[in-house]
Amino acid sequence: MNTTTQSPLQQISESLSFAGRQLRFQHASSCCQCDMTFSIYLPPQAEESGARLPVLYWLSGLTCTDENFVQKSGFQRYAAQHGVIVVAPDTSPRGEGVPDDPDGSWDIGLGAGFYVNATQEPWRTHYHMYDYVSAELPEIIAEHFPVDTARQGIFGHSMGGHGALVIGLRNPDCFRSISAFAPIVNPANCPWGQKALGYYLGEAGRAWNDYDALALLEEHQPQCMIKIDQGGADSFLEAQLHPERLVQLCQNKRYPLEYHLYPGYDHSYFFIASFIGSHFQFHLEQLNQSA
Amino acid sequence: MNTTTQSPLQQISESLSFAGRQLRFQHASSCCQCDMTFSIYLPPQAEESGARLPVLYWLSGLTCTDENFVQKSGFQRYAAQHGVIVVAPDTSPRGEGVPDDPDGSWDIGLGAGFYVNATQEPWRTHYHMYDYVSAELPEIIAEHFPVDTARQGIFGHSMGGHGALVIGLRNPDCFRSISAFAPIVNPANCPWGQKALGYYLGEAGRAWNDYDALALLEEHQPQCMIKIDQGGADSFLEAQLHPERLVQLCQNKRYPLEYHLYPGYDHSYFFIASFIGSHFQFHLEQLNQSA
Repeated sequence: MNTTTQSPLQQISESLSFAGRQLRFQHASSCCQCDMTFSIYLPPQAEESGARLPVLYWLSGLTCTDENFVQKSGFQRYAAQHGVIVVAPDTSPRGEGVPDDPDGSWDIGLGAGFYVNATQEPWRTHYHMYDYVSAELPEIIAEHFPVDTARQGIFGHSMGGHGALVIGLRNPDCFRSISAFAPIVNPANCPWGQKALGYYLGEAGRAWNDYDALALLEEHQPQCMIKIDQGGADSFLEAQLHPERLVQLCQNKRYPLEYHLYPGYDHSYFFIASFIGSHFQFHLEQLNQSA
Repeated sequence: MNTTTQSPLQQISESLSFAGRQLRFQHASSCCQCDMTFSIYLPPQAEESGARLPVLYWLSGLTCTDENFVQKSGFQRYAAQHGVIVVAPDTSPRGEGVPDDPDGSWDIGLGAGFYVNATQEPWRTHYHMYDYVSAELPEIIAEHFPVDTARQGIFGHSMGGHGALVIGLRNPDCFRSISAFAPIVNPANCPWGQKALGYYLGEAGRAWNDYDALALLEEHQPQCMIKIDQGGADSFLEAQLHPERLVQLCQNKRYPLEYHLYPGYDHSYFFIASFIGSHFQFHLEQLNQSA
């Protein structure tokens, strides 16, 4: 690790996992104007001299921190097998002075940043998760860890699947592969999304489209294939997620999409753990093609 | 599942995981005199007509419930691969009327039953985890699920490693294979164990020996090989765990022991997840030999 860095990282924890290192850091974030926490897994291959490894960014869903994916998905096995660095940011700014929903609901505020740059009070000072994930964090990671910035992918779950689609589609030079589990594909037209976008961005309108995967795909052709896995017994499928809208759009426009509906699987990490291995394969194929 | 049962089980949750079913149940326990909760994983092979599958009982460590192992170890992948049913009981009785440590410490009381039959007040009414795990729960499981009772193994972590060793060694007809991660092998001679055994069993003496793996192995030859994995960076290794005492005793007495010290690994589920696959292999070899 570079010790003459301009963005000091404070290590919170370290555990060996599948012969690699599962680490957790805190740092001062300029775009969120607070301390941010992220987890990073360095596979054993990261210890080799001169290593430059592909990196995947995982975005988690509502109520999660950086730790849920790290503790529950079992991804380390596949990251170690394939030699991939995995970064998991938190799902919102946190800490003293960072506002939460005064009504205490779990679908906006802390743990629910929705990966946007908020423009409304009281959110606009700290809730800049879009800039944080798409720019500040990748810069910090590239500065401190042996990543190959030409092989960066992004994936996530639910609200984090929305984040992965939006951030991936809008930043094709940064992220060369995109996948999601049970993503919110059309936040502008589902209850979770409408509530969050309304609070963070104000009334529905053009600003919302920048954070809606369906609207983005209506306007722009994706630069890479997208992979989406959805559980058929997911209790949020009908009201919140609407993958069928994205499937239909990609079909109409002949965009490359790998969509799997797995009957019986729910919205939990048991679903993610069952299929996370196939996402590593997908990203590596995409990244090694494009590199 | 048998619907004419004498021990009704109330299902709390169900999630598909690696094509099998991760379930959670509550039931009235006669030996703990309260409602007890357990998790059970049924691999896809359990759905086949006439199936009788091997079963492993996992005992968790201090502060855990039945859910930690289920959510964090990634065991379902291996259970599905090998066709093994896995049962994870809670670590203590719980609920209204079940006493906890009045001082609020986490190493006795709720989440810290130590897998003994308590003889002291106020614990003696409910804290019968030894009988629960060694007799009541296996009977319930055999009544409701397609297990092969000739192929039952037991394993666990830390306090649960102690439980697996003690219950396995004392019940060789029930459990034909035993393994542990970072077990407390000599509770009669370490701070955690001395505190718990003192509270639950009273002053040190013969009663303690029934719950001390080292004392049991001093008196009786094990009926099966034991496997123990220990992390070299485990912060509890020197003060609480003392695997070297068990290694020395097995060496002196020429008892079969498979002991691995893994440098750099700590006491967490990251360690367990990294090596849980090898425990499935070990148990299946033992169980298929003895069956």
